[in-house]
Amino acid sequence: MEMVVERFEHGGDIYTHKGVLDFSASINPLGMPPASVEAIREHAAHFDVYPDREYRELRAALAEHEGVRPEQVICTAGASDLFQRLCFAVHPQAAMVTAPCFSGYEEALEQNGVEIIRHELKAADGFDLTDSILGFGQRGVGILFLCNPNNPTGLTIDRDLLVRILDEARETNVLVALDECFLGFTHEESAVPLCDEYPNLLVMSAFTKLYAMAGLRLGYGICSDVELLECLEAAGQPWAVSEPAQVAGIAALGVSDWAERTRAYVDEQRALLERGLEACGMRHITGEANYLMFQCDQLLYDPLLEKGFLIRRCENFVGLDSSWYRIAVRTEEENKAFLAALSSCVKKGQSPFSASGDMER
Amino acid sequence: MEMVVERFEHGGDIYTHKGVLDFSASINPLGMPPASVEAIREHAAHFDVYPDREYRELRAALAEHEGVRPEQVICTAGASDLFQRLCFAVHPQAAMVTAPCFSGYEEALEQNGVEIIRHELKAADGFDLTDSILGFGQRGVGILFLCNPNNPTGLTIDRDLLVRILDEARETNVLVALDECFLGFTHEESAVPLCDEYPNLLVMSAFTKLYAMAGLRLGYGICSDVELLECLEAAGQPWAVSEPAQVAGIAALGVSDWAERTRAYVDEQRALLERGLEACGMRHITGEANYLMFQCDQLLYDPLLEKGFLIRRCENFVGLDSSWYRIAVRTEEENKAFLAALSSCVKKGQSPFSASGDMER
Repeated sequence: MEMVVERFEHGGDIYTHKGVLDFSASINPLGMPPASVEAIREHAAHFDVYPDREYRELRAALAEHEGVRPEQVICTAGASDLFQRLCFAVHPQAAMVTAPCFSGYEEALEQNGVEIIRHELKAADGFDLTDSILGFGQRGVGILFLCNPNNPTGLTIDRDLLVRILDEARETNVLVALDECFLGFTHEESAVPLCDEYPNLLVMSAFTKLYAMAGLRLGYGICSDVELLECLEAAGQPWAVSEPAQVAGIAALGVSDWAERTRAYVDEQRALLERGLEACGMRHITGEANYLMFQCDQLLYDPLLEKGFLIRRCENFVGLDSSWYRIAVRTEEENKAFLAALSSCVKKGQSPFSASGDMER
Repeated sequence: MEMVVERFEHGGDIYTHKGVLDFSASINPLGMPPASVEAIREHAAHFDVYPDREYRELRAALAEHEGVRPEQVICTAGASDLFQRLCFAVHPQAAMVTAPCFSGYEEALEQNGVEIIRHELKAADGFDLTDSILGFGQRGVGILFLCNPNNPTGLTIDRDLLVRILDEARETNVLVALDECFLGFTHEESAVPLCDEYPNLLVMSAFTKLYAMAGLRLGYGICSDVELLECLEAAGQPWAVSEPAQVAGIAALGVSDWAERTRAYVDEQRALLERGLEACGMRHITGEANYLMFQCDQLLYDPLLEKGFLIRRCENFVGLDSSWYRIAVRTEEENKAFLAALSSCVKKGQSPFSASGDMER
C-alpha cells in the first residue's frame, strides 16, 4: 500500500527520491534561460556583498516587462514568501481558497491563524470555477485566493467571470490575490492590466516555473495599491531577494521570446501526453498549463517510482482522492519514456505502448 | 549638513552610492572562499529545480562543523530570516535587547508587535556588557537578544558573565538568542558547546560575514530544544534556503582553515586601522571583530563619501550619537587608502598621513 501523503507535501522532492525523473514539479522543460545561467556564473564572485535591498534594477526591468510603474512591483524570495507576507500583513479574520487548489495559500493562512473558507470546485463542473463563487463578499473573507490557471487542474478562469469577481471584491472590500505563476504557459491574458482599475487586485507570480528558477527563489507581485505593497515589503526580512535571483531574473527578462518559445514547445508536448493518457484509457482534465491532472483507478505512484518516475499524487489536494495524479510536461524524450512506463504499469490490453518506450501509434 | 539617518538604515548600500569603497558593511576582506564561488558556477545550470526543503547535506555538514547533531541545526535565508522566525514563533510579550546594538532584532520584534526593553551599555563602562544586566528575568521578557561580539562595538561578552546570564535565563524561563555572526573573526570561544546544558540558548549565526556570502542569504541557528527548532522551521516559507546558498555553504565548510586565515589577516589589518585612527587623534573602541567603532567630533560621512569611501554612521544605534562611526576592516591596500582619506578630512596638524596614502610611521 502507498503511504499516507502529508497535508503540505509538495512535488519536486528529488532529494528523498534520488535519481528519479521528476514529473511531480512542473518546471519549464526548456530549463532556465541560458542568459540567466551565464549571469549567475559571471556574477558569482560578487555575491559576497549585500544585494540591493530595494532590487532597483530588477524592479525596473519587471515593471517594463509587465507594463506597470516600478512602485507597483514587489519582489520576494519565491511566491511562497509573498503568500506569507500577505497573510501576515493583511491578516484578515478569514480568507477564501478554492478546492482543489495548490496548498501553499492554506499553509500561509494557517501559519498566521487565519480562518480558511473553502469554495469547492465540483467534479461535476469538471473542476471549473463557475459563478457559484459569487457572493463570497458576504462571507466575511478579507482575501480571496485564486489560481489562474488552477493547480493541479490547469484550467483557466473565464475572463468575464474574473471581472465579475473583481467587481464584487471591490464593492465588498475583499482583496483578490490572483496567482499567475503558471499563466505564461497558457495563451490566456494576464490580469495585470486590470490592476489600475482594481486596487484590490494583487497579481502574484514567480520566475520559478516559466523561467525554471525554483532553486533561486524569486517571486513577485503587481498591485496598484502602493500602500499595501509597502506593508508587504515591511512584513518580511530585509534583503529577501538574493543577488543570484536578481541577476538571473534581470537576464531572463532580456530574453524577449522566452514565453512564446515555451508555449509552442509545451503545447506540442502536452498534446503528446494527452494522447498517451487517452490511449491508456485514463480520464484527464484538459488543462492549459505545463502539467496534466489525470485519474486512474489503479495505484500508480509506487510502481512508477520503481521505474524511476516521480509523479504528484493528488490525494492531499482538498477535494481530490487517491485516484488523481498530476504530471509535468517535460521534454519529448522524457515524456515518451514516461508514457512507456505508465503503459507498462496499467493493466495489459489497455496499453498501446511497449515497455521499451517506443510508441506503437 | 548630513541627512537624518533612518532608524533601520543598515550598512552595505552600494546601490545608492555607486562605485564607492564600502567600509559600512563588515564582510570578510578575503572575500568568499574560492571553493564556494566555484560551486555556484558548477551548479548554476541546476538551479532550475527546487532546493532540498530540508537542506539535508548542508545541515549534516554544519552539524559536523559545529559538533552538534543535525536535528539541532536550522538554516535560514540569512540571519535576518532567523530573527523574524524567532519573533513570530515565540512571540513573547516583551524582549530585551542591549543598546547600542545591531538594529535587526528590534526590526523583527517591532514587526511582530513585541514590546522592546533596552538594557543600556554605558559609555562609562566603555560599552561593555556588565553584570548589571542580571535581573532581566524579573522584567517579564521572553527573549533576551545578545550579540557576541557586539555590533557596532566589537566587544565580546565575558564567558563567566555569559554563563551567569544563561543560568538566570534557565531559571526564569527566558530564551537567550545569542548572535555569533561575527564571532569567527575573534579568538573567543563559541557558546555552541553550552547548548546541551542550556536548552534555552539559541546560538544564531550566518555565512554572511565570515564566508562573505551576504548576497546569497544563508543564516543558521543551533539549539538543543528541537521542538523550538521545529516551530522556527514552520514559522517561515518553505524552500527558504536557496540552492546557491546550499551549495556555496557546503563548499565553504570544506575549507578547514578559513576562519584561522581570516583571523590572522583581520588581526593585522585591524591593528593597522587602530594605529591610523589613533594617529588622527580619534578615540576608538578596542573591539575584536572585523570592524572598528570610533568617535570624531567632526562630521565625516559626507566628506569621506565625496572621496569615495562609504562608512557607517552610528547615530541610528540607540545610545550613540552622530559623533560615532563604524568602519569595516578591509584589505591592506583599501585600509591604507581609507586612512589617507580620513587623514585628509580631519583638521590639519592632526594627521600623520599624506594625501597619497603612504603612512608616515
